[in-house]
Amino acid sequence: MSAEARLRELGIALPSPPAAAGAYVPAVRAGNLLVLAGTLPMRDGKVTHAGKVGRDLDIPSAAAGARLCALNALANARAALGSLDAVRRVVMVQGFVNGVDGFPDSPKVINGCSELLLEVFGEAGRHARAAVSVNGLPLNSAVEVQITLEVG
Amino acid sequence: MSAEARLRELGIALPSPPAAAGAYVPAVRAGNLLVLAGTLPMRDGKVTHAGKVGRDLDIPSAAAGARLCALNALANARAALGSLDAVRRVVMVQGFVNGVDGFPDSPKVINGCSELLLEVFGEAGRHARAAVSVNGLPLNSAVEVQITLEVG
Amino acid sequence: MSAEARLRELGIALPSPPAAAGAYVPAVRAGNLLVLAGTLPMRDGKVTHAGKVGRDLDIPSAAAGARLCALNALANARAALGSLDAVRRVVMVQGFVNGVDGFPDSPKVINGCSELLLEVFGEAGRHARAAVSVNGLPLNSAVEVQITLEVG
Repeated sequence: MSAEARLRELGIALPSPPAAAGAYVPAVRAGNLLVLAGTLPMRDGKVTHAGKVGRDLDIPSAAAGARLCALNALANARAALGSLDAVRRVVMVQGFVNGVDGFPDSPKVINGCSELLLEVFGEAGRHARAAVSVNGLPLNSAVEVQITLEVG
Repeated sequence: MSAEARLRELGIALPSPPAAAGAYVPAVRAGNLLVLAGTLPMRDGKVTHAGKVGRDLDIPSAAAGARLCALNALANARAALGSLDAVRRVVMVQGFVNGVDGFPDSPKVINGCSELLLEVFGEAGRHARAAVSVNGLPLNSAVEVQITLEVG
Repeated sequence: MSAEARLRELGIALPSPPAAAGAYVPAVRAGNLLVLAGTLPMRDGKVTHAGKVGRDLDIPSAAAGARLCALNALANARAALGSLDAVRRVVMVQGFVNGVDGFPDSPKVINGCSELLLEVFGEAGRHARAAVSVNGLPLNSAVEVQITLEVG
């Protein structure tokens, strides 16, 4: 099943592509790679999951934020490609969690992004990943993901 | 206008390529990608913008540091390529800000790098980006950027 | 000398490929790039170098952890490729150190990874790199590295 068909089957409507938070663009193609900008847990221009994970919000809530980051990244990818069916493979996810000092559970948070990619792309959604906790994210977001795709 | 011509028009002289801060090299080419090492706000072997953003220096000062990081990255790229005119496109900027805990303004800092790339490369300077705050950077630098280019 | 021969000469036996710490895979190939997942200082399923560098462990110990991260990454690469002799070049190392606030010595820690790569791959092991300190890593690891290779 194609990624666009799977999104419909899952009943997922992608958000509008988010506005860039600075002097950059949402996606750049280089050869067969589509490098997406980092995305935040935003909807309708507002951060929905803000603050420090482990103090202001818990891991399941932050994982829901990571899922929304992934949806925003896919919205950017669709805007760049015309259709997500042009995605051949998810290559890499860089996951950044706005965690309390010493936060050890960035993988559990970033799984919210990774699992969405697996739902949408199936086998082609299996990606390499690095997840870390950082001490601050744009607009005080709880999580940020940066995704690289291979395209046809 | 070519990137080298634009640099001349802007009156920008690139710094000498910075020495590596460890067991790595300043640039590696893989296919049509030129992956640059992370660069710091250094000139003549000294860090010019040090400390925590939001405590030891403010956002405009850190953004000036990010601009200098970009100039050092371009010095590395020119040393690897012979001329910046071999750059086809700026693909990606990873921006790391040495911010106070919870620092939310990494995009404003990293804009100092991004805007320099737009000045030098014009349309080809438009890049994807991820910007985060981290709790420490090499030599106590206030900012570090890591840039990936597409080359001809 | 080939990378596999060099490993034998150095008397280095790679660890078993580590289990993924989340919903991702250890390696993805895209064109001539092999993008490896972030790896931790683990052996036999246990983190061997945990805690904050600069408080719970010192730089040489953390550098030994970074070397083990690199060995785990190479174990993943060998599992994906069949043999490390398929590696044409090490392209990039992203190094994350779980440092105390303001930690300035991430390069010294990540050198433990970089030097191992130079030992194994020689000239082809020379890579670009970015090293930062973050406020937390998976399973409270002291260090994490994410490596990208060019393959034949």
